[in-house]
Amino acid sequence: MKHANRPLGVAKNCFWRRNKVTWVLIAMQYSFYNDYSEGAHPKVLQALARSNEGQETGYGLDRFTTEAVELIRAATKRPDADVHFVPTGTQANLIVLSSVLRSYESVIAVHTSHINVHEAGALEATGHKIITVPHINGKLTPEQVRETCALHNDEHMVQPRVVYISQTTELGTVYSKTELQQLSQTCRELNLFFYIDGARLGSALTARGSDCTLDELAGMVDAFYIGGTKNGALLGEAVVINHRELKKNFRHHLKQRGALLAKGYAISLQFHALFTDGLYEELAKHANRMAHKIADTIESLGYRFLTPPISNQLFPILPNTVIEALKPNYGFYIWSQGEQESPIRLVTSWATDEQAVDAFIETIKNVSTG
Amino acid sequence: MKHANRPLGVAKNCFWRRNKVTWVLIAMQYSFYNDYSEGAHPKVLQALARSNEGQETGYGLDRFTTEAVELIRAATKRPDADVHFVPTGTQANLIVLSSVLRSYESVIAVHTSHINVHEAGALEATGHKIITVPHINGKLTPEQVRETCALHNDEHMVQPRVVYISQTTELGTVYSKTELQQLSQTCRELNLFFYIDGARLGSALTARGSDCTLDELAGMVDAFYIGGTKNGALLGEAVVINHRELKKNFRHHLKQRGALLAKGYAISLQFHALFTDGLYEELAKHANRMAHKIADTIESLGYRFLTPPISNQLFPILPNTVIEALKPNYGFYIWSQGEQESPIRLVTSWATDEQAVDAFIETIKNVSTG
Amino acid sequence: MKHANRPLGVAKNCFWRRNKVTWVLIAMQYSFYNDYSEGAHPKVLQALARSNEGQETGYGLDRFTTEAVELIRAATKRPDADVHFVPTGTQANLIVLSSVLRSYESVIAVHTSHINVHEAGALEATGHKIITVPHINGKLTPEQVRETCALHNDEHMVQPRVVYISQTTELGTVYSKTELQQLSQTCRELNLFFYIDGARLGSALTARGSDCTLDELAGMVDAFYIGGTKNGALLGEAVVINHRELKKNFRHHLKQRGALLAKGYAISLQFHALFTDGLYEELAKHANRMAHKIADTIESLGYRFLTPPISNQLFPILPNTVIEALKPNYGFYIWSQGEQESPIRLVTSWATDEQAVDAFIETIKNVSTG
Amino acid sequence: MKHANRPLGVAKNCFWRRNKVTWVLIAMQYSFYNDYSEGAHPKVLQALARSNEGQETGYGLDRFTTEAVELIRAATKRPDADVHFVPTGTQANLIVLSSVLRSYESVIAVHTSHINVHEAGALEATGHKIITVPHINGKLTPEQVRETCALHNDEHMVQPRVVYISQTTELGTVYSKTELQQLSQTCRELNLFFYIDGARLGSALTARGSDCTLDELAGMVDAFYIGGTKNGALLGEAVVINHRELKKNFRHHLKQRGALLAKGYAISLQFHALFTDGLYEELAKHANRMAHKIADTIESLGYRFLTPPISNQLFPILPNTVIEALKPNYGFYIWSQGEQESPIRLVTSWATDEQAVDAFIETIKNVSTG
Repeated sequence: MKHANRPLGVAKNCFWRRNKVTWVLIAMQYSFYNDYSEGAHPKVLQALARSNEGQETGYGLDRFTTEAVELIRAATKRPDADVHFVPTGTQANLIVLSSVLRSYESVIAVHTSHINVHEAGALEATGHKIITVPHINGKLTPEQVRETCALHNDEHMVQPRVVYISQTTELGTVYSKTELQQLSQTCRELNLFFYIDGARLGSALTARGSDCTLDELAGMVDAFYIGGTKNGALLGEAVVINHRELKKNFRHHLKQRGALLAKGYAISLQFHALFTDGLYEELAKHANRMAHKIADTIESLGYRFLTPPISNQLFPILPNTVIEALKPNYGFYIWSQGEQESPIRLVTSWATDEQAVDAFIETIKNVSTG
Repeated sequence: MKHANRPLGVAKNCFWRRNKVTWVLIAMQYSFYNDYSEGAHPKVLQALARSNEGQETGYGLDRFTTEAVELIRAATKRPDADVHFVPTGTQANLIVLSSVLRSYESVIAVHTSHINVHEAGALEATGHKIITVPHINGKLTPEQVRETCALHNDEHMVQPRVVYISQTTELGTVYSKTELQQLSQTCRELNLFFYIDGARLGSALTARGSDCTLDELAGMVDAFYIGGTKNGALLGEAVVINHRELKKNFRHHLKQRGALLAKGYAISLQFHALFTDGLYEELAKHANRMAHKIADTIESLGYRFLTPPISNQLFPILPNTVIEALKPNYGFYIWSQGEQESPIRLVTSWATDEQAVDAFIETIKNVSTG
Repeated sequence: MKHANRPLGVAKNCFWRRNKVTWVLIAMQYSFYNDYSEGAHPKVLQALARSNEGQETGYGLDRFTTEAVELIRAATKRPDADVHFVPTGTQANLIVLSSVLRSYESVIAVHTSHINVHEAGALEATGHKIITVPHINGKLTPEQVRETCALHNDEHMVQPRVVYISQTTELGTVYSKTELQQLSQTCRELNLFFYIDGARLGSALTARGSDCTLDELAGMVDAFYIGGTKNGALLGEAVVINHRELKKNFRHHLKQRGALLAKGYAISLQFHALFTDGLYEELAKHANRMAHKIADTIESLGYRFLTPPISNQLFPILPNTVIEALKPNYGFYIWSQGEQESPIRLVTSWATDEQAVDAFIETIKNVSTG
Repeated sequence: MKHANRPLGVAKNCFWRRNKVTWVLIAMQYSFYNDYSEGAHPKVLQALARSNEGQETGYGLDRFTTEAVELIRAATKRPDADVHFVPTGTQANLIVLSSVLRSYESVIAVHTSHINVHEAGALEATGHKIITVPHINGKLTPEQVRETCALHNDEHMVQPRVVYISQTTELGTVYSKTELQQLSQTCRELNLFFYIDGARLGSALTARGSDCTLDELAGMVDAFYIGGTKNGALLGEAVVINHRELKKNFRHHLKQRGALLAKGYAISLQFHALFTDGLYEELAKHANRMAHKIADTIESLGYRFLTPPISNQLFPILPNTVIEALKPNYGFYIWSQGEQESPIRLVTSWATDEQAVDAFIETIKNVSTG
């Protein structure tokens, strides 16, 4: 991607929109592009100030990190879990997965999975193949896992070792408790490591119809991460490890991949705030509530969705005329371009302004019925 | 390293000290262990709050990052430089170096260099060898570079491609302008890429006797990074690239290694503050002034130093009796254990308390003359 | 794969057949499992004896290698090509591809391609992703290449850089001259590197209906390899490079991956024999002729094929009763198990015995009409 | 290295000698450059012809390989060992070592070791660092191993996991039985994997004063390889594995690195011949006897050696005038250029002609006393 000629002096509420070969700056009323357009919740920022209270041991051996680890152990009901804080989700994924895998071992994931599509080959750069299978509403099934293992049966092929899923999925859907249990059980039977990418775990736990709690999910996996960046933090993800072997020397892996912060509290203090007084859940609920308001309106207008609209990512299929009418004032991705109608992606966040949502709802009503 | 049995409830000004196989928590008056024991300068924390002003484009395409890039271009007088913000120094090093190198190419560095000793094999994990040579006061010489290139002359050996140095060095010394010019010239002659690890660049620029400005240094290299973590930031380093080829697709490399933050402003806003009104220089000067106060006292007491005490890292050689007397109240590393006397490392920071320094000075005077 | 309890004392014409969890040894009349069940053509073995004529320079700088390179340059009409000899096809592929690719760059290939399925993640182990697309009769189309490039348009995704195809394909089909030209043209337009895996290139060049000569193919690619192992050599493949940048320092890459033989003539002498007096073509023609005899019979019996039966790999779809009747006396893979009928793979080689083929033909006629 | 303008039509007993930037072809009486200038012993070549006796299972599951494995198990008295045949020593090293190591683990080796200097960064290309220590006559000591482990004590540094030595060393010296036992014992105590690079193991076992048999050595290590290329084979090394964990899935590693030959017998048949009727030992003895003849003469002329002249690699320190007098007729490397005298390397092989040795002896006598 070239961001040549990107002008300076960007004003508030102006956004860069990619225009084939270059970037153009547009003013718009509101962005539903993603859930990382705003900074951090005020309580998170306040927590960071505590880092100036005194001197702390470096590299995550400080008292704030110790406390944040305990808060997460309590929230997940995993008193024996190891918890590590890393700057980005891509790092969480590449470090956990590459630490588990021997060189000839691989990960099973759906084709649309973040590690396969949107991490610029991060896992392959550590030397490992991803075996992809078709998704069903963004999800992976136990049958797919079994079939993949049965197929990869000799030394000419990579050997499956990890099952990777995202919760919520990249298509905004959520695995039910039963689905997770079945995947977990399948992994145990086949001696596979079960890992969940929780970049949007908050939204999943508080999604419409969600029936799996944080501690239930935590009890079913070998490792997962709790996304901070997309739920109120400035940056940072919390990796939670149950698997005994992976716990050993995990800090070596963190260091080697550049994820061991000298000032570990720069991330752990944020999770300290998020896991105090239920802030993490509260922020996710807000994002979902904003999404549901939009989804309900769109549904009432008679439009369909690419996948069930239950979390903070919505994929309504709108007439191209409606999309064109929305574009001048609202930011969103066109998921795939159709001839008459196209699915778009709308994303809400912990900071989404309800007034903006209400205005958007009015607009879409007007342009739909107009 | 095992940090088994690390108890909770760490009080302020208590530190973890490694004790062979486990960790013990000790209370002490003050830590001179390192320059990352304190959080971030208040102006840096204030800047982070700006991320809540409105919505921003993700992945470093926001207005704060755009402005921070311009501030660094101005400070380095490199209007054409590319500037990228990454969470850690290890990431800065591994991403720049692995992006430059073809698989059979390698880096020349002194044996004591951070990439060789203290990055857990991060560069090798990207597939590249470091050719090490003995250091002279922590430094590399043009002659060593020439000899190394002459030796590596066929396809059975890796081919040198990058010269890596740290400024300040890992031993607290500083390359003079002439030394940098000679290395730069050697690199140009031999078609080598010249890279500086500036984790402690602030301290180098304001060290005693330093004769090389930021823009002069910036003009001599293909790429370098300006350390934030060790000079007032919570986390983050600014990679500055002059080299045309490296500029291309560098964001792909950042993404692949997990260093492209969704909220790019989480780091760029910190550099925004550091490069406004000379804060970066001011903080480094304070750290150095605190170090010089200590160094002058130690010198006046007749002790020698492992390397010239000019920056914020001091390596005084003290009698073991003096060291033992200091240990209960002060935190520092014993660099290598001698029979009668041993070099220790004392480090000051932007946040080092002058009263604590004065108290330390009194203590060392007393235990020396006592 | 476990080959536990593999007994000793294997007799001639006995084969190991995998039986789910272990290996069983079976006696059979003839194997059509693959084209590497026999040693080397007598002329190839004779050539190896020349290595004892005197002393030679090591690592491929000997006179036999020099001569073999010239023979291949002449056969391909590429006087400026670089030619290197490597032990295995997997090495040829992983070395060429990893040498071309920067870390964020990837290869486009069909899902059934050898590098994707049957090299145990060799390319990924060098750090690179393969972008797979569905095959059409084992082949890749220019449209698929264009669409893949259009989709991978930002730094969150790997960037396509190489187009990989196999000739013959893994399904025994052969790209026509026009198909190769279109792929070559597409690569040139999109600045992609065009590479052909020629493990079975001999069979492709002499396949039924083949309209592309060796020198025509050689002129359309950036690099390819000529397979020796599957066409009369004991081991060894000849990598031919047109691309100027790849030529530079390719021996470094060979050495680093363990493919630079101390006695380079151990492979080059074999190609010396294969490219003298048209032996390479002669051997491939024999393999194809044997396959065509079988294919014609099977066709005449009214059976269909998974893919057109034109080269030395045949994929007839046979009734399971016929397959069961053949199994006791003939070795072959069941490509995929169907309920009534299943495709099997039959492979002939330079050494396939015509009497055995005739006997097989009689058997299949009998069991079909029986 | 550029081998530009390498002319064709090399005559017998002409060699390429590197001349700074290009290659020149020189005629000479005899080469002592290395032990891979000649092909394979006639019995080895005869053995290869057996591969045409019938059809064999591919990928090393054939009867010849099965038999060769048993011959090596018998010779090493390791009935439970796994034995695998690979094309090159660099592959043997990189595959064994990368298979053992986790990403943050490293190898301890002397600075002069082949993996550190002459494999073009092959091990680093698999992601692993080599921790180098100074050699003592080419050897590593238990004390160095202990000190290295003591130093690498936290997650900022790579963790030592493997001890690598070469037998003979790169300087022609040989570890005694006691030295090997002490290293082996040290490795067991520190939970390190002990590996021996046996590229010239034949010469070591039959060196002057050698007191360690093949089976004694085989019993002290976790894995090692028996060099074929430098002792009578065309190509190929036999990897012998005692270590239970490494045995598992080793064929996956072989396949992934391109070392699993379709016609596995191409190498195993050579070892079949070498380990029948003591041929391996016989060839090594010849090489050593030729070297000792030369060494005794040089010693009698009063010259010193860089290292004790006990195996097939000799490092005499000769006056530059003598070296210049030898150069027109004999091929050898000048190990390092001195002002008055310089060490050179002379290497003999299984095929070294005794008449040529006698002539060389006469020449050196003449030019020394002349």
